[in-house]
Amino acid sequence: MNQNYIQTHPWKIIEEGFDPSRVESSESIFSLGNGIMGQRANFEEHYSGTTFQGSYIGGVYYPDKTKVGWWKNGYPEYFAKVLNAPNWIGIDVNILGEKLDLNCCKILQFRRELDMQKGLYVRQAKLELINGAQVSIVVTRFLSLKLTEIGAIRYEVTPLNKDMELSLLPYVDGEIKNKDSNWEDPFWNHLGTSIDNQNAFLLSQTNKTHFDVCTFMGARLYKNNNLVSEASQPFQKDTKAGHMFKIKAEIGECISLVKMGGYVVSTHHPKELLKPKATLCLERAFSFGFDNLMNEHIQEWSDIWKMSDVEIIGDLKAQQGIRFNIYQLNQTYSGKDPKLNIGPKGFTGEKYGGSTYWDTEAYCIPFYMVTKNQSVARNLLEYRYHHLEKAIENAEKLGFNGGAALYPMVTINGEECHNEWEITFEEIHRNAAIAFAIYNYERYTSDTSYVREMGLEVLIGIARFWCKRVNFSEEKNQFVILGVTGPNEYENNVNNNWYTNYSAKWCLDFTLQKLDEIKRYSPEDYSRIQSCVKLEQHELEDWKHISKNMYFPYDKKRNIFLQQDGFLDKEFTKSSEINPKERPINQHWSWDKILRSPFIKQADVLQGFYFFEEHFEQMVLHHHFDFYEPFTVHESSLSPCIHAILAAKLDRMDQAYEFYLRTSRLDLDDYNAEVHEGLHITSMAGTWMSIIEGFGGMRIKNNRLYFEPRIPQQWNSYSFKINFRNQIVKINVNHNGVSFELEANAPLTVQVFDELIEIKTRNRIAI
Amino acid sequence: MNQNYIQTHPWKIIEEGFDPSRVESSESIFSLGNGIMGQRANFEEHYSGTTFQGSYIGGVYYPDKTKVGWWKNGYPEYFAKVLNAPNWIGIDVNILGEKLDLNCCKILQFRRELDMQKGLYVRQAKLELINGAQVSIVVTRFLSLKLTEIGAIRYEVTPLNKDMELSLLPYVDGEIKNKDSNWEDPFWNHLGTSIDNQNAFLLSQTNKTHFDVCTFMGARLYKNNNLVSEASQPFQKDTKAGHMFKIKAEIGECISLVKMGGYVVSTHHPKELLKPKATLCLERAFSFGFDNLMNEHIQEWSDIWKMSDVEIIGDLKAQQGIRFNIYQLNQTYSGKDPKLNIGPKGFTGEKYGGSTYWDTEAYCIPFYMVTKNQSVARNLLEYRYHHLEKAIENAEKLGFNGGAALYPMVTINGEECHNEWEITFEEIHRNAAIAFAIYNYERYTSDTSYVREMGLEVLIGIARFWCKRVNFSEEKNQFVILGVTGPNEYENNVNNNWYTNYSAKWCLDFTLQKLDEIKRYSPEDYSRIQSCVKLEQHELEDWKHISKNMYFPYDKKRNIFLQQDGFLDKEFTKSSEINPKERPINQHWSWDKILRSPFIKQADVLQGFYFFEEHFEQMVLHHHFDFYEPFTVHESSLSPCIHAILAAKLDRMDQAYEFYLRTSRLDLDDYNAEVHEGLHITSMAGTWMSIIEGFGGMRIKNNRLYFEPRIPQQWNSYSFKINFRNQIVKINVNHNGVSFELEANAPLTVQVFDELIEIKTRNRIAI
Repeated sequence: MNQNYIQTHPWKIIEEGFDPSRVESSESIFSLGNGIMGQRANFEEHYSGTTFQGSYIGGVYYPDKTKVGWWKNGYPEYFAKVLNAPNWIGIDVNILGEKLDLNCCKILQFRRELDMQKGLYVRQAKLELINGAQVSIVVTRFLSLKLTEIGAIRYEVTPLNKDMELSLLPYVDGEIKNKDSNWEDPFWNHLGTSIDNQNAFLLSQTNKTHFDVCTFMGARLYKNNNLVSEASQPFQKDTKAGHMFKIKAEIGECISLVKMGGYVVSTHHPKELLKPKATLCLERAFSFGFDNLMNEHIQEWSDIWKMSDVEIIGDLKAQQGIRFNIYQLNQTYSGKDPKLNIGPKGFTGEKYGGSTYWDTEAYCIPFYMVTKNQSVARNLLEYRYHHLEKAIENAEKLGFNGGAALYPMVTINGEECHNEWEITFEEIHRNAAIAFAIYNYERYTSDTSYVREMGLEVLIGIARFWCKRVNFSEEKNQFVILGVTGPNEYENNVNNNWYTNYSAKWCLDFTLQKLDEIKRYSPEDYSRIQSCVKLEQHELEDWKHISKNMYFPYDKKRNIFLQQDGFLDKEFTKSSEINPKERPINQHWSWDKILRSPFIKQADVLQGFYFFEEHFEQMVLHHHFDFYEPFTVHESSLSPCIHAILAAKLDRMDQAYEFYLRTSRLDLDDYNAEVHEGLHITSMAGTWMSIIEGFGGMRIKNNRLYFEPRIPQQWNSYSFKINFRNQIVKINVNHNGVSFELEANAPLTVQVFDELIEIKTRNRIAI
Repeated sequence: MNQNYIQTHPWKIIEEGFDPSRVESSESIFSLGNGIMGQRANFEEHYSGTTFQGSYIGGVYYPDKTKVGWWKNGYPEYFAKVLNAPNWIGIDVNILGEKLDLNCCKILQFRRELDMQKGLYVRQAKLELINGAQVSIVVTRFLSLKLTEIGAIRYEVTPLNKDMELSLLPYVDGEIKNKDSNWEDPFWNHLGTSIDNQNAFLLSQTNKTHFDVCTFMGARLYKNNNLVSEASQPFQKDTKAGHMFKIKAEIGECISLVKMGGYVVSTHHPKELLKPKATLCLERAFSFGFDNLMNEHIQEWSDIWKMSDVEIIGDLKAQQGIRFNIYQLNQTYSGKDPKLNIGPKGFTGEKYGGSTYWDTEAYCIPFYMVTKNQSVARNLLEYRYHHLEKAIENAEKLGFNGGAALYPMVTINGEECHNEWEITFEEIHRNAAIAFAIYNYERYTSDTSYVREMGLEVLIGIARFWCKRVNFSEEKNQFVILGVTGPNEYENNVNNNWYTNYSAKWCLDFTLQKLDEIKRYSPEDYSRIQSCVKLEQHELEDWKHISKNMYFPYDKKRNIFLQQDGFLDKEFTKSSEINPKERPINQHWSWDKILRSPFIKQADVLQGFYFFEEHFEQMVLHHHFDFYEPFTVHESSLSPCIHAILAAKLDRMDQAYEFYLRTSRLDLDDYNAEVHEGLHITSMAGTWMSIIEGFGGMRIKNNRLYFEPRIPQQWNSYSFKINFRNQIVKINVNHNGVSFELEANAPLTVQVFDELIEIKTRNRIAI
C-alpha cells in the first residue's frame, strides 16, 4: 500500500485536506467519464503546482510514427496515442485583482468527494488569498449520461471576510500537451475560435489522423441563485476563447457560474456541422438547466446501480473498493457504441494509448455480459469480427499467409499499433483470449448465433495462425512454440510458454468442435463459411495432429508444468524475500535484473488454470498455486484478481480476501505506486470477477448457473445481481448460506455445489 | 552481389556513366575522410535528384532522447547520433542563367574516380543544359591529411559549344538534416554567418551536446590558371553565406574555382577563437595553394601505402577490394587522437551513430596494430581504460555492484548510448572482446606494461561482472548465463549462448593468470591495484570455482557445442534453401520470422573458434564449421572475414576465397543491398585479417611470428608488410612458397608451419 488518504465510505470517495504531492493521484482517482469522454479531476481554476492535465475523447487518437534506429520488419506504422483534448473545463477566477491559484494561497479547508451513487464530483475549499481575501468555493462537476457530449460544472464562490469584486473567466483552450509526446510534438492543429452570446467554440483537427473536434462551452452567472443578466465580456484568441464575468459580492453572497461544455466530433457528426451541433448541445443543456440535467444524470446512475451493484455488509473498505471498480467500469464503457472498446486506463490517463488489449476478452467481457446484457457482450465480440481482415493482414506482415489471423496486441481500429518486438510479435496468447471469449459468451448466453454468423471465421483464422506458428521439433518429436511472451511479461522471447502452448492447443480443439457442430446442425452456414474462407479438409487434419502432439514443458521431479523451457535454471528466491524498498521491482530494478529473476508479473501458468479449470483436478491446481504464487509479484493489475479467484476455489479464504483487497483497492491505496498515471480500468472487471467467480463461485456447468458460495470471515454478507439469459437473479451470501431472488417470468434452476435448486419467479430461496 | 557497375582497377574506383539510381550508393563508395572529418561524395552543385547528404565531424554527436512508451529501467538517457554537419562543399553553378543540376540536364559523359593511391576524388562530366549550353566539368576533391581541418575542391568548367556567362557561388550552409531524425528535429542551433574577403563562416552549436563548430570556406577564381582578381559579390543569410563569382568564358577556356573549407570545433579549440582559427586555417591552406596542398596530401598517402599495402598479383578484383578496404580504414582512423575510435560506418553514413562498438576490439585492433604501430593499438586499449569508471557505473545501473564493469555496447564517451534491451543489457559478450584485445595486444607486442599499468583493472572489472552475471542452476548443477544475445543477433535473450559462456570463462581464467603473473613479477603494481580496486582473495576463489563449473550447451548425438540452449528445437533448413529473392532476410522477413529461424547472422560459435582456436583440435573446428556455416547468412559485414580465416585454416581455399571476395567487395558489389547507407568500415579490418591471418596464416605462437601461408589458386602471388615489435617484415607468398624481407637492424626468427627460419637484416629469404 503506497497511500492511505482516501477516506472510507460505502458510496463515496473522499479526500480531506490539501497536499500538493497528492494532486496527480487524486486527479486520477476522482476522474469522471461517461463512456464517450473522460476528464481527470483537474482544477477548473489556474493551478501552478504539479498537475497532470487530461481530457479524453473516446476513439480519437494520434498515430505516433516515431521511428527509432532499430525498427524491426513487421512493425506497424505507428503507435496510437490517446490524445489530451482541448480544455473545456477551465475557469480563471480573479478575486480582488488576484488570480486564484491553490498553489499560492492559504488553504483553510479542502475536500474532494466523488459520489459514486450519483456520478458527481464535488470539490470544496476555504481559501485565503495573498491579498487577505477569504472565500469558500464549491465546485460540482459531472459528465452527463443523458447528453453524452456534455459535461457540466457549477462553480460557486462565496466571500467570507469582506465584500469583493470577482471575475470569472470560463474558457475553452487548445494549448494543451500530451505528457508522452516526444519533443513536445503538436498533436492538434487548431482551426480557430469563435464566440456567440455566452458560448465559445474552438475548432481543431488532430494531426495525421484528421479527427475534427469542436470543443465548446456556454456559461451563465448567478448570484444567490438568481441569473445575473449583465452582459459578459467576450474574450478571444487563436486557440483560446471564453467570456469574462465581473461581479461584486458581499460577504455570504454565493456567486455561482454554471458552465456547460464538451466536444462534438467528426466520428459522429458531419465535419461541417460541428459548430451548429455544439450550439444545439448547449441549447439543450441550458434548457434542462444544471439541476435538471444533474437529476437526470443521477437517475441514469441509479439505473446502472440497480443492476450492477455489489453490496458488502460488514467491511467498508471492501465495499468502497468494489463500488469504485464498478463505478469506473461504467464510466469507461457503456456498451452502446460498437466502435468503442475498453482501454486499460479508460479515460483517466495517457498510458497504453487508450487502445484495446486482450484485457477486454480475458477480463472485461464477463462484467459487461453479466451486469448489462448479451447484446453488450456481443458488441465486444463483433468488434473483433470486424477486425478479422486486419488481423489477417497483420499475420501476413509477419510472414503467415493462408488466412491465418493474428489479432493485434494493441489496437484502436484493428491495426496493430504497438511496437516492441517481444510484445507485438511474441505475446501471441492474445489470440487465444479472443477465442476463449467466444467460448465464454456462448456458454453463458447459450446464444449460438454469433459463432454461426461471425465467430467461426474468427476461430478459423486463429486456428490457422497457431497451425503455422508451431514448428515440429525433431529433437522433442513434438510440436513446439518458440519465441513467445506469455502473460508474465517479465519473461520475453521464451520457448514453449506452457500457457501459450496449452491455449493454442485448446483453440485448435475448440475450433474443430465448433466446425463439427456447425457442419452437423447448420450445414448451410458451414458451406458458406467453408467457401468464404477456403477451408480445406487437410487443414482440419493438421490441427488435430498438432493438438495431439503439442509439447508441454513439465518437470517430473516437482510434478509441475513449467512456465517455459529452462525455467528451472533460474536462481529461486521468493517474492517475500525482496527488499520491500525495492517493490514494485519494475520501478526499482533494471529490466535486465527483472528478466533473469524468477519473479512473475501476473498469473501465467495460473492464468491457464483459471481459463481451463475444468481440465485439471483440484489437487493439481493446489500444487501449481503453491509453486508459482510465491514467485509472483502481482505487478500487473490483472494479477491479484485471478489469484483471488483461484485461492477462493482452493478454499483459502484469507489469501483470497487479501488478493481481493489488493485488486479492489489497487488504485485507492495505490499498491503499484503509479495511480498518478491513471486508473487500472480493465483490471477492475477482474475485481468484480473476484467476488462473483471467486467468492460467489459462479460458473456455468452443464449449461446451468452454478455457484460455490464462500464468504470471507471479515464480511457479514454480500450480494450481487446477474443477468442470466435475460433473467435477473440476485444472490445473497452470508455465513449461514446463500439465497436467491429472481426477477423474471420463468423459474430458474441453479446448482449450488452438488445441489440443484429451482428458484421460482419473484421468489426468495435460502439454503 | 547487388551491383556491378564499379570498374576494376588496381588502384582506382571508377564509375562510368550516370545513373540516378546509383547516386546514393556512389555517394557512399566515393566518400572521403581524413580521420578527423568525412564527406560523402555529394555533388558540389545543386542536385534535385535523390541524394543522401552527409558531412561528418569526428567526435561530434547528438543525444537523441526520444522516449518511447516502453522505456526500460537501466536504459541510458540517450541514443547518440552522428550529426550531418553544415555543408562546406556547396557551389551553386549558373550557366547562361540556368542553374546547373545533373538531374535536369542531358549528360553526355560522366565519370567518377577515386584514386586510392593519392587520396583524390575526381568527377568529370560533359553536360548539355536545357538552354543548349554544353560544358565540361572536372571536380577534384580531397580532405587534407596535411591540414586535417581542411578540405579542398577544384571545380573546373569549360564551355564546349559557345561562349558563356557563368556564375559560381561557393557557400557554407547550415540548412541540413539528419536522415534518421525523428520528426525532423533540429540538431543544430545556428549562431550566425559572417563574411570577409572571399571567405565565409557559419557558427553553429549542436543542440543539447553544445559542441561549437565553425564551418568555413574561402574561394579563388582562375581563368586558364590565372587568378581572376575582380571582386566577388558577397552573399549572406542567417544560415548560409558565400561569394558569387561572375565571369565570361569563351569556348575552350577553363574556368576554375578553388574552394577550401572545413570545420574547426570546440573539442580542439577555445570556443571564442573558432572564427580566428578558421581564418588561420584558410590562410595556411591558400598559402600552400591547391596544387601544393594536394601534393603534400599525396605524399602522406604514399607513406601510408608504403606500410599498409597488400599487393595481389593475378586477380584485379581481389586487389581492388583489399586496397579499397585499407584505404577506407585509413580514411576513418589515423590513430593520432586518443579520444576518437572507429565507428562501424566511419564517416560515410549516419547508421550506428558513429559510435564505438566491439568491432574495434574484435576486428580493428589487429589492422592498426600491425600496419601502424604499437602506440596506435595501445591508444585504442587506453580508450577503454579511460572509460572503466563509466563501465562500472553502467553495470551499477543494471544492478551489479562491487566494481563489476560492463562496457557499453555502443558509446561515444564511455556511456552506453544505445537502447534495445536485448542488445544494451544482453549482448554482454562485448566485455570479453575487450579482454581479448588486451591478450591479443600483449601477445603481439610483448608489451606487458599496459596490463600492469592499466589493463589489469579493466580485466578485474570484467571478471567481476561475469562473476555476478552468472547464476548457479540447481537443475544443471553448474553455472549458467541466462538472457543473453550472442554475436548472432538473429537470436535474442537466449540462455547459455556457448560463445558467451566460453568467453566469460576465458576472461576469468585470463584475469587470474595475469593477476598471478603480476603478483609474482611486479608485486608493487599488484599491491597498488589490489588496494585501488579493493580486490579480495575470495573473489579469486569465486572466479576459479565459476570457471571450473561453467555449463556449456552440448549435443552428444552430433558432438557439437550448441549455439544456445534449445537451439535444436528449430526447424532446420539451410541458408542455401532460402529463396534468393528473400535475401538478405533482414530486409525481407519479419523480425518474428528471423528470430525463430535457424539462420545465423554472423559467426557465433565459430567466433569462439576464431578467438580461441588453440583450445580446439582441427577436427573439432572442421565439425563445427560444417554444422554451423550452412545456416549462416552472413548478413553482418563481420561474418565473411571470420569464415574466410577459418576456411583457410581448414585448407578449404575455394571457400576461403569466396568469403574473401565477399568481405573485400562487400560494399563495392553491395552484397547486403545497403551500401547507399554508408560503408562497412570496421569489417574492412576483417578483410585485411582474411589475407594476413587467413591466407597468410599469421599467428603469434611461442612468442614468435608464425605463418601457415596458403594462396588461392586464382592468384599468382600476394605480399604484405607487418610491423612486428618495431621490425618491418614483408611477406610474399606465391605458389612456390613464401619469402620474407626484413627492414630492421636485428635478425628475426619466424616459424612457417613446423619450420623455424631466421631472417637476416635487410635480406630476402625464400622457402
